[in-house]
Amino acid sequence: MEDTGVWLVGARGNVATTAMVGARAVARGETNTTGMVTARPPVSQLDLPGVDSLVFGGHDVQETRILETAREMAERGPPDQDTLDAVAEDLQEIDSRVRTGTARNCGRTVDALADDTLDADRSLTDVVDQIRDDLAAFRREQDVERVVVVNVASTEAPIPDAERYDDLEAFEAALQRDDADLPASSLYAYAALQERCPYVNFTPSTGASLGGLRELAEANDVPHAGQDAKTGETLVKSALAPMFAGRNLRVLSWEGHNILGNTDGEVLEDDANKQGKLDTKGDILDRLLPGDPHNRVRIDYTPSLGDWKTAWDYIHFGGFLETEMTMQFTWEGSDSALAAPLVLDLVRLVAHADAHGEGGLQPHLASFFKAPLGVDEHDLSRQFDSLEAYARRHLEADGVTARDEAEREVDR
Amino acid sequence: MEDTGVWLVGARGNVATTAMVGARAVARGETNTTGMVTARPPVSQLDLPGVDSLVFGGHDVQETRILETAREMAERGPPDQDTLDAVAEDLQEIDSRVRTGTARNCGRTVDALADDTLDADRSLTDVVDQIRDDLAAFRREQDVERVVVVNVASTEAPIPDAERYDDLEAFEAALQRDDADLPASSLYAYAALQERCPYVNFTPSTGASLGGLRELAEANDVPHAGQDAKTGETLVKSALAPMFAGRNLRVLSWEGHNILGNTDGEVLEDDANKQGKLDTKGDILDRLLPGDPHNRVRIDYTPSLGDWKTAWDYIHFGGFLETEMTMQFTWEGSDSALAAPLVLDLVRLVAHADAHGEGGLQPHLASFFKAPLGVDEHDLSRQFDSLEAYARRHLEADGVTARDEAEREVDR
Amino acid sequence: MEDTGVWLVGARGNVATTAMVGARAVARGETNTTGMVTARPPVSQLDLPGVDSLVFGGHDVQETRILETAREMAERGPPDQDTLDAVAEDLQEIDSRVRTGTARNCGRTVDALADDTLDADRSLTDVVDQIRDDLAAFRREQDVERVVVVNVASTEAPIPDAERYDDLEAFEAALQRDDADLPASSLYAYAALQERCPYVNFTPSTGASLGGLRELAEANDVPHAGQDAKTGETLVKSALAPMFAGRNLRVLSWEGHNILGNTDGEVLEDDANKQGKLDTKGDILDRLLPGDPHNRVRIDYTPSLGDWKTAWDYIHFGGFLETEMTMQFTWEGSDSALAAPLVLDLVRLVAHADAHGEGGLQPHLASFFKAPLGVDEHDLSRQFDSLEAYARRHLEADGVTARDEAEREVDR
Amino acid sequence: MEDTGVWLVGARGNVATTAMVGARAVARGETNTTGMVTARPPVSQLDLPGVDSLVFGGHDVQETRILETAREMAERGPPDQDTLDAVAEDLQEIDSRVRTGTARNCGRTVDALADDTLDADRSLTDVVDQIRDDLAAFRREQDVERVVVVNVASTEAPIPDAERYDDLEAFEAALQRDDADLPASSLYAYAALQERCPYVNFTPSTGASLGGLRELAEANDVPHAGQDAKTGETLVKSALAPMFAGRNLRVLSWEGHNILGNTDGEVLEDDANKQGKLDTKGDILDRLLPGDPHNRVRIDYTPSLGDWKTAWDYIHFGGFLETEMTMQFTWEGSDSALAAPLVLDLVRLVAHADAHGEGGLQPHLASFFKAPLGVDEHDLSRQFDSLEAYARRHLEADGVTARDEAEREVDR
Repeated sequence: MEDTGVWLVGARGNVATTAMVGARAVARGETNTTGMVTARPPVSQLDLPGVDSLVFGGHDVQETRILETAREMAERGPPDQDTLDAVAEDLQEIDSRVRTGTARNCGRTVDALADDTLDADRSLTDVVDQIRDDLAAFRREQDVERVVVVNVASTEAPIPDAERYDDLEAFEAALQRDDADLPASSLYAYAALQERCPYVNFTPSTGASLGGLRELAEANDVPHAGQDAKTGETLVKSALAPMFAGRNLRVLSWEGHNILGNTDGEVLEDDANKQGKLDTKGDILDRLLPGDPHNRVRIDYTPSLGDWKTAWDYIHFGGFLETEMTMQFTWEGSDSALAAPLVLDLVRLVAHADAHGEGGLQPHLASFFKAPLGVDEHDLSRQFDSLEAYARRHLEADGVTARDEAEREVDR
Repeated sequence: MEDTGVWLVGARGNVATTAMVGARAVARGETNTTGMVTARPPVSQLDLPGVDSLVFGGHDVQETRILETAREMAERGPPDQDTLDAVAEDLQEIDSRVRTGTARNCGRTVDALADDTLDADRSLTDVVDQIRDDLAAFRREQDVERVVVVNVASTEAPIPDAERYDDLEAFEAALQRDDADLPASSLYAYAALQERCPYVNFTPSTGASLGGLRELAEANDVPHAGQDAKTGETLVKSALAPMFAGRNLRVLSWEGHNILGNTDGEVLEDDANKQGKLDTKGDILDRLLPGDPHNRVRIDYTPSLGDWKTAWDYIHFGGFLETEMTMQFTWEGSDSALAAPLVLDLVRLVAHADAHGEGGLQPHLASFFKAPLGVDEHDLSRQFDSLEAYARRHLEADGVTARDEAEREVDR
Repeated sequence: MEDTGVWLVGARGNVATTAMVGARAVARGETNTTGMVTARPPVSQLDLPGVDSLVFGGHDVQETRILETAREMAERGPPDQDTLDAVAEDLQEIDSRVRTGTARNCGRTVDALADDTLDADRSLTDVVDQIRDDLAAFRREQDVERVVVVNVASTEAPIPDAERYDDLEAFEAALQRDDADLPASSLYAYAALQERCPYVNFTPSTGASLGGLRELAEANDVPHAGQDAKTGETLVKSALAPMFAGRNLRVLSWEGHNILGNTDGEVLEDDANKQGKLDTKGDILDRLLPGDPHNRVRIDYTPSLGDWKTAWDYIHFGGFLETEMTMQFTWEGSDSALAAPLVLDLVRLVAHADAHGEGGLQPHLASFFKAPLGVDEHDLSRQFDSLEAYARRHLEADGVTARDEAEREVDR
Repeated sequence: MEDTGVWLVGARGNVATTAMVGARAVARGETNTTGMVTARPPVSQLDLPGVDSLVFGGHDVQETRILETAREMAERGPPDQDTLDAVAEDLQEIDSRVRTGTARNCGRTVDALADDTLDADRSLTDVVDQIRDDLAAFRREQDVERVVVVNVASTEAPIPDAERYDDLEAFEAALQRDDADLPASSLYAYAALQERCPYVNFTPSTGASLGGLRELAEANDVPHAGQDAKTGETLVKSALAPMFAGRNLRVLSWEGHNILGNTDGEVLEDDANKQGKLDTKGDILDRLLPGDPHNRVRIDYTPSLGDWKTAWDYIHFGGFLETEMTMQFTWEGSDSALAAPLVLDLVRLVAHADAHGEGGLQPHLASFFKAPLGVDEHDLSRQFDSLEAYARRHLEADGVTARDEAEREVDR
């Protein structure tokens, strides 16, 4: 299989950096694929692009080099120093392919963090054209079969009345009149879909979730997936909430308190941007639990934690004979180590979809997202089953027998 | 539908008492059905015996009356005082139907706790005949359609070389020769199955898990289910472990520490009896997680906690780029409030199976047990799906449309 | 010793109700004195007013009767039903002595909760006169030696520029001109001190902390103590923070997240009132820990928890060789059960001070408060030592030998 | 001041290695003194030997080099790689001074871990003479003013009937007859005290706690301190338990569950050795809390955690009106990073005592130990106060004014 291009919007941030460090470390045999869903049978048996065949580029509005970001991260890890040394040159080469991006309508905090952006006086159509040119140049220069665009930039504020953009015509009219509400993430998504690049929105930002952009993806037969990757506390919620529901235990309150100290946390200190994150985090419990329990999610910025996101959840529930009981958990994870392998998984899976002519929404990717586009199922096990079923369908079509459990073990 | 008899082995213990208090409180409109799986659609739409139609009786080796057990429990709750007052007479009536049981081969600690048992010098066949007589008398006197036997007695020590009893002939030969290894739980199970009473083993004791007894259940076409109800920490494990596996995160260690203060805890202080419990608790992680992680479960007796079982689990796992992360949870639940509704659920579901001629193992009941007989699937969501599929099959066969989610809400 | 009057501002709230239920239950032999600091030697050996000699009355702006408050509380406990039954008549008698209070300048949320208050168009001097009349009438009618006034009303918003009222003249001038910033708690404190009633501010509200009122207390030789009783999370902080400091471990971040569901929590949902609470909670770590660690305290309203206040604290600290480590704790306590005995303790101790002519500030009571007036020491053990030293000084002066540890045991 | 020799028994273990890495890193300006109690005023103002003036040597029964131990530790840290590189040569030099030690009567597990020991057929007096020769040679060759001996070897099993050795004569008679119960730690202690080397027993092993050895220390006027350094869970207990006691809250149960994965954990898997540890850990609560609460401490070996010791404590306590409440905490610390700075502190403080002719027990060092020899006070704050008072006495005697809080800040 030919190489696959991966264009990261927010290429110099923590998640992008960790994804690239990891991909190159896997390619060089410096680390294994633990944490990658696509490394597990039966998904691993699909004809996916190899991790070593991924060629990276991207946009950013920060000037801190990828290698510098990686070095800062290595102080607390991941990555560790040895792994970083092994891929340092690769990172420098990738960095030379990073182009100046846009931060239109991302909120004040993102603006304040931006070092350099596409000129603020350019028209939106001009910005979109520039992005398209950058994508086309990357594809041409790297001679890759396809380019997957992944949004891993800082979270934007949510936009009001998103239904304004519910068809493509309305979206393009807004572009033409330089609509001040169209956020950067949707400009990137539009450019990607026009360039027939499969698109993944890893963040809670608007991206391709607008009706007009979904229409475009269908029209151009481009696969896209989103939104808001499910990496930590919400992942646990989607595994635990079905337990309470299935046992007919009545959740009275579910309190979630997240603390983290990376740039993501800093951006979320701005209440407007935080709202985007909270909207998708809270939602999932409302869907999984009956009776509308009290449900609060807090995200606070705690600088000393760096990339380590810690969540404390307190679940107060009622059982038989009105007995009140509690469960609480603390999750301490490296945000980047949890997110990065999923970026690679999603790239491989949307590339696979594109190669098989499966444009539009990708419901079998629901397990990756807090707010999976076009999917109402939030039960994690059922979401996993849907991905496995997708893999088995393809394997059967290809005459491959999914390996059994015994063989799976051997892979490890 | 006619009344259904429920014969509880260990009728004066906490779990049995709470189940009876709850059933009578539901029947009298004093409480709701929160915590009962059979109160949720689509299972609730099956033609199950009504909670108010259950008629209770049982065996015990303790002389403390059910009402007295209930009063002791009400000091810390559940039940609360008002509920107890409402059902006190019912409990006294039930208590008059409790017969002296046997504690053969249950281990020293259970022996020490027993006030009165069937004479120790009786032969095993004589003990079995007595149990059968008691069951037949109960059915006759209460004029019930069928009697479901449920083992909720204290945990026995596991028996060595259980495969000795792998066919019915061997089992019956052992009975004849007064085999000193045949535990009480299996004598009860044998009597129940001979009387064609559906049988549920709620505990980790041997019960009907022996090959010979499974053979008998098939031969007599009697449904039976077990073993070791999944009420607390292990329930959470079966919901969480698939999350780690599905995300290809490598669990390095999973430490579980349980503390509790009821009779169950006291019995488990005896290392032999504890072993029975630990065998099934640890097992589930080995099945759900690859790579054979370090996996320890401790159960300690902490008198001040009474019926409140508290578990602390610490999960150390590795992710991408060899990043080590942790999750920990604390579960604080009333053992009886969690177990009791499941007793009622299982009674209703095996009665349903019996009414529909579905003898033998009941794989769709796997979600109720730590060691579901005849089922290898330990993923809780998949186990729930299997129960739901069972319900839908029956509803379709009966021309009933399973109500959709919107209607489910109305039930609450 | 003659009876001692206890005048509770906020007499129908949870803390007041629990204090009265407890005092009467102790008096009637229905419960013990666990949780009361004054029940421990050597403090218990002082010549303190007996718990059974306390006569209660108070002000409130709510019409819900004390007995009704107690009944609502008893649903989740404390108190339990038996205890409540034993003191129900006492509570009704006390309720007949409750007078309509004032809620001037307590913030919108408190206003919204008030059923009835002293007329809003009365002048401040008129309000103060009414309070003084109520206090005098209580003392006269109950024929008590002295009346201790305790503020247990809902938390007010903090006042700006409190130094405006730094001397008595300025405070009284403000009274005269109906200063719209003078909060209810300070009106009560002024009235109490003028009536020569020992005064305790159990809440974070302003109370007698103003310079002008301290001056008045000195002038009238009336003991007073405050402010903001230390009952839960902050108590733990004051025990733990000295451990980190003493071991030269560097706290990097100390995150505190409190959830509770009582009226106090409801009032704190109003950001203005919450600020009063947060000011004193955060402060203590700044005093106990060097290096200005990141220090956040959140208080959220979680209705299902009722009076049970749960705190999760996460402490990120650095040690030798720049090693980063963590400690976290969860505290689950009944706010009222923790606060009520301290109300009784403080009443007894300020009555003791008054009886011994010890007017003004009471530095030996620092252990009871988050922001002890006139004391900089926040190390809990040292605060305890100061109370013990006070007791020993009095005992020595009285020729009493403080009992040794062996004898203490006997008391339990 | 001249250099001070530090002779570590167990010189190649984790704690010793971390102490040496840390001391050399401080000496070379590679790290700071966070975690060292002697770096805080007023103790830091004493005339203590400088960290850079410490010269290390020691005994061990393992052949793994110090540098190798340090490298293994650096994989998870501490130390980090940069720090290790900076001191690698120092470690190699120190290693050349390590002599073969003895593991007499340390239990089977320690035996199994030993690579090489002083010949098992040597008489005890011969072993003691060898140790004394090694100490004397070290002092002579390094030309140090004094040698402080610190036991940081793996925990031995406790010895039965320790009162057998309650006077020096009995101890020496046991030596002469090759008493098979005299453990290695006491042989080292005897040798040290005979050589007039100040001695610190950092572990729960017997060491100099025998009456006969205390007598020897007094006779020779040699300072000694022990036993069982208080680094983690017990440290927290000694800070928290006085809070419960001081508030007259009744602890019903205090459950402690420790998991760790280093050699210490491995040795503790042997029940005999574990007992030594548990004896001192549990004891402290019995002393600090009245009413004999249920009090269990578990220590389990969890290999994946390495040097990171995690403790979960669950405290069930009763308050006013018989209200039951809970507190739980999780402590996650690097055992070595917590222990190592205390080794350096103790070396400096017993050297100081020796320089000032303060032989025998050192009660002001109680805060460092779980079972401080000769001290009954377990309240951490009071123990800290005792150390501070010691420092202030010396400073006053020397005419030095202890710096106030404002100045302390400047040090940081």
